[in-house]
Amino acid sequence: MGLTIGVDIGGTKVAAGVVDEEGNILETSKVPTPKTTEGVIDAIADAVRGASAHHTVDAVGIGAPGYVDDKRATVLFTPNLSWRHEPLKDLVEKRVGLPVVIENDANAAAWGEYRFGAGQGHDDVVCITLGTGLGGGIIIGGRLHRGRFGVAAEFGHIRMVPDGLLCGCGNQGCWEQYASGSALVRYARQRAVATPERAALLLGLGDGTPEGVDGKHVSQAALEGDPVAIDSFRELARWAGAGLADLASLFDPSAFIVGGGVSDEGELVLEPIRKSYRRWLVGSQWRPQAQVLAAQLGGKAGLVGVADLARQG
Amino acid sequence: MGLTIGVDIGGTKVAAGVVDEEGNILETSKVPTPKTTEGVIDAIADAVRGASAHHTVDAVGIGAPGYVDDKRATVLFTPNLSWRHEPLKDLVEKRVGLPVVIENDANAAAWGEYRFGAGQGHDDVVCITLGTGLGGGIIIGGRLHRGRFGVAAEFGHIRMVPDGLLCGCGNQGCWEQYASGSALVRYARQRAVATPERAALLLGLGDGTPEGVDGKHVSQAALEGDPVAIDSFRELARWAGAGLADLASLFDPSAFIVGGGVSDEGELVLEPIRKSYRRWLVGSQWRPQAQVLAAQLGGKAGLVGVADLARQG
Amino acid sequence: MGLTIGVDIGGTKVAAGVVDEEGNILETSKVPTPKTTEGVIDAIADAVRGASAHHTVDAVGIGAPGYVDDKRATVLFTPNLSWRHEPLKDLVEKRVGLPVVIENDANAAAWGEYRFGAGQGHDDVVCITLGTGLGGGIIIGGRLHRGRFGVAAEFGHIRMVPDGLLCGCGNQGCWEQYASGSALVRYARQRAVATPERAALLLGLGDGTPEGVDGKHVSQAALEGDPVAIDSFRELARWAGAGLADLASLFDPSAFIVGGGVSDEGELVLEPIRKSYRRWLVGSQWRPQAQVLAAQLGGKAGLVGVADLARQG
Amino acid sequence: MGLTIGVDIGGTKVAAGVVDEEGNILETSKVPTPKTTEGVIDAIADAVRGASAHHTVDAVGIGAPGYVDDKRATVLFTPNLSWRHEPLKDLVEKRVGLPVVIENDANAAAWGEYRFGAGQGHDDVVCITLGTGLGGGIIIGGRLHRGRFGVAAEFGHIRMVPDGLLCGCGNQGCWEQYASGSALVRYARQRAVATPERAALLLGLGDGTPEGVDGKHVSQAALEGDPVAIDSFRELARWAGAGLADLASLFDPSAFIVGGGVSDEGELVLEPIRKSYRRWLVGSQWRPQAQVLAAQLGGKAGLVGVADLARQG
Repeated sequence: MGLTIGVDIGGTKVAAGVVDEEGNILETSKVPTPKTTEGVIDAIADAVRGASAHHTVDAVGIGAPGYVDDKRATVLFTPNLSWRHEPLKDLVEKRVGLPVVIENDANAAAWGEYRFGAGQGHDDVVCITLGTGLGGGIIIGGRLHRGRFGVAAEFGHIRMVPDGLLCGCGNQGCWEQYASGSALVRYARQRAVATPERAALLLGLGDGTPEGVDGKHVSQAALEGDPVAIDSFRELARWAGAGLADLASLFDPSAFIVGGGVSDEGELVLEPIRKSYRRWLVGSQWRPQAQVLAAQLGGKAGLVGVADLARQG
Repeated sequence: MGLTIGVDIGGTKVAAGVVDEEGNILETSKVPTPKTTEGVIDAIADAVRGASAHHTVDAVGIGAPGYVDDKRATVLFTPNLSWRHEPLKDLVEKRVGLPVVIENDANAAAWGEYRFGAGQGHDDVVCITLGTGLGGGIIIGGRLHRGRFGVAAEFGHIRMVPDGLLCGCGNQGCWEQYASGSALVRYARQRAVATPERAALLLGLGDGTPEGVDGKHVSQAALEGDPVAIDSFRELARWAGAGLADLASLFDPSAFIVGGGVSDEGELVLEPIRKSYRRWLVGSQWRPQAQVLAAQLGGKAGLVGVADLARQG
Repeated sequence: MGLTIGVDIGGTKVAAGVVDEEGNILETSKVPTPKTTEGVIDAIADAVRGASAHHTVDAVGIGAPGYVDDKRATVLFTPNLSWRHEPLKDLVEKRVGLPVVIENDANAAAWGEYRFGAGQGHDDVVCITLGTGLGGGIIIGGRLHRGRFGVAAEFGHIRMVPDGLLCGCGNQGCWEQYASGSALVRYARQRAVATPERAALLLGLGDGTPEGVDGKHVSQAALEGDPVAIDSFRELARWAGAGLADLASLFDPSAFIVGGGVSDEGELVLEPIRKSYRRWLVGSQWRPQAQVLAAQLGGKAGLVGVADLARQG
Repeated sequence: MGLTIGVDIGGTKVAAGVVDEEGNILETSKVPTPKTTEGVIDAIADAVRGASAHHTVDAVGIGAPGYVDDKRATVLFTPNLSWRHEPLKDLVEKRVGLPVVIENDANAAAWGEYRFGAGQGHDDVVCITLGTGLGGGIIIGGRLHRGRFGVAAEFGHIRMVPDGLLCGCGNQGCWEQYASGSALVRYARQRAVATPERAALLLGLGDGTPEGVDGKHVSQAALEGDPVAIDSFRELARWAGAGLADLASLFDPSAFIVGGGVSDEGELVLEPIRKSYRRWLVGSQWRPQAQVLAAQLGGKAGLVGVADLARQG
């Protein structure tokens, strides 16, 4: 099989790209995410049609947020799009006349990094994506671990703190409440309220109020040495690393890959994550230790990954 | 391949048994666990020699507590026996002249239940063993998940409570501090100290003091309706179930199997575990749910399981 | 001094009452809480004028939510009314021509219970009020403990869970997130989502959805035996009792008084609070233990208490 | 009244001193702590006799670890000495023929600091003593707050972490498990196990093993810049400061005083305590804030304090 199309359905936009066997993106398109299922399917069909004008395409892979069933055909549940048991594979196949594979977007990103990014050379990889929330994917023995019902690797919702922060999922203490871009901003705002004089640089990047602080401000302030911003990254890293230590106890991969917008800051966040990971890794002196690597594909991991999954059928 | 020998190295005794292809134990022997590595190897060699007198045996499987390496040859670390990087496979093969497979004991028990116990008919199973500590094993797609370095499924040491109870592993808040036979006894003793009049029945089973309460007392008292003992089982179940909910988010199996001494009490502990599991399962209304089953093989799961692993080579 | 007026500024209404030396309310009035400070002062002045038509009144006490300064003159901070450093005493005295005392509303309620309710006969009392949030007041040696700056006894915001639930105050894990009417409803809703079939009775009292469940439904369902509602009360009681055990270690009173809307259910909530309190009380066998009593004055405790504080000047 | 004798019964030694009205110690003696009650009383009597040879002494104050009853006469419970309901006041008065006052040792130390140390000029003071454990004392309106039954201010055992570390008191998550000299050593050892290369300096001060690290090593290493030792102090300070924020919500003092061996390191530990205190103080921008001061009397605070309490009768 040659070229395939990867589609990434995000909260704000639907991106599509023609991807070759080596993970290169030959052509891309992007539209704002439509509000209805029909609109999303139209957008996917448009993207496929557009790409087919210039390329011979053999299959379509679609990365969707939420639960995807064990047949990779139906989206069981998508928070942002209000999808419930949506037979996306059938709907799209009818429209585009090509084989379609649906995959959870974080699984797709993990597969992308495994095949063409930081995971190359490893057969057992666990990826976490620190974006607005926290997503993840698992490769075991060179295969994507989807679970019996397709909903494995929902890392964001393992409980890190009993009776902890309320999560959008209804539970409390979920990992993504402590290790994600949203958590980073919360850490910074809370500190800015408590000790505004320490946060002067950070506050100055926004409108001067703690509420005005966003993720970009925290990153920039941290790079400029703002102590509150640096503390906020460290707190995020403490939780991220502690969770990786748990995942090591469970999966024992040879490498962890850390991706997502938060990881764009590179060693500013990777280094404290490694420190925390080592701090909490059980039996660290008696076992070979998985490496903690930065993701390499950035925001394209999901699109590239799901295109590759479609190629493999 | 026909008959194989399974060996279970426990803290107090080394048990061996000749096992057939259907998981039947044809013959067993048992000796107190020797204090030295040489002693353990002698005991294994004796057991194999004894069994070989009556049966034709093709291979030996040995279940050991602690970390076993990715080649299933070396015990990296065993808390109770002070083993460190012990090349057990080579040492035993030289003595008995048969192929030897080493496996973590909880992995072996999980395999036993999968093949011949509660896990039959499932391909994706996660087992937890609630004994003195908490062990576990994972079957994915009909294969034992050992991890890249052989040390996967160390469930007992994932962190359930940040800054929680000190664990023998050096970390704090490990799951086995909250869900195990030891935890059960601690729960009962703490309650007996705080409200001795409520614990009258329980205290009467021992020497009358909270320190004199042991696990058997708690089980018996619970069966007789002692409120403190019942509360103690429920507390254990709360933690066990919450952990299973996390494992569902990570592995998404079709069944969980709960074994170990604590599970001998059956529905007394299984039912509240299921309740807690459902309470904490993320997105429970949008996903097929794994069943929570009681183990069927009792204390023989490990021996039977490791004999079968040896058969499969 | 004879009669005084107590005023209770609540989130929804301003209540005023003429109170005699024995805590009897001779006359009351009530208006919706105005949105501006001026409006609130007008309402207070109206109530005083109305009451003065029938009674000779010597002083006015005003219970306000939020921080009241050490001179009992200025409201430093009131979340619901957006008051910041509001010189309420001066403003009201100018209008009504009577001496005015301002007090935190939960302090006032504690004083009311101490003088005329469940606290009679005790000199060292700690009160908690389980309403929408959690408030409290402390009596030491027969005197209201206000603290050096007037902001003592802010029980609702001590940290019960590190990294716990986000609180309106900006911190995480505050006691009132776990022990209050709001917490009770959250517990019930979360359980109704996870195990709707167990919550059938509870759900039937509202519109059938977890979001439709309110505090009255939980109380009624609990009284009718609904297991989810009863579990929810128990969870609230676990946190309330654990907090009382901490307060015993700190203040060592002879009695705790539990008031607020949640306590209207009486032993349904008091009994599990006592159980949890005893469970967590340090050194319980070596010390005299404070009793845990139900409040007696209901929603009038604050008005009666602040009228009495005004009388004492 | 003129001179009084203060006695400090510690775990390892009994110290006595003649103290004047201004808190000056005129003469001291010290003996190893006897193992029996009789031995302790003998030692106290000896000390009083010795001091009386040179001074006219009017009363004796005795600081004891554990619970002291509301009459300041009976030690209800002392962990280290196995005292249970020991009528110490009567026993000593019979022997020495002087009025005797018994006080909890941490209360005594708080009183000492209030009268002659860091608390001078404040009427509302909360002291914490970070020694092997964590003790405390409370001054409200210039009076020692003993509670209704004499057992107030048992700060060490308020619950900081639900389901947290096991404490000698039988409960879990007590503050002293997180903020004390013992906690400091645990933090350092855990880090030394996890990341020995980072802890090279620290490990080099002892025998090279994590177990060989003691409190003095951690202090010295921190002063020399060892990152693991500094992190350990910061972790202790995080917990100490968070607890002070809670105490501010409860007591609202004008000053906190931090004493005990851990505080000997001065700003190394005080500064991060202040930072954490401010981080967690509720409503910090709307209230006057208590200062956080270093104790001034060192290990003599208890002896001086209890001598003064005896003077006041």
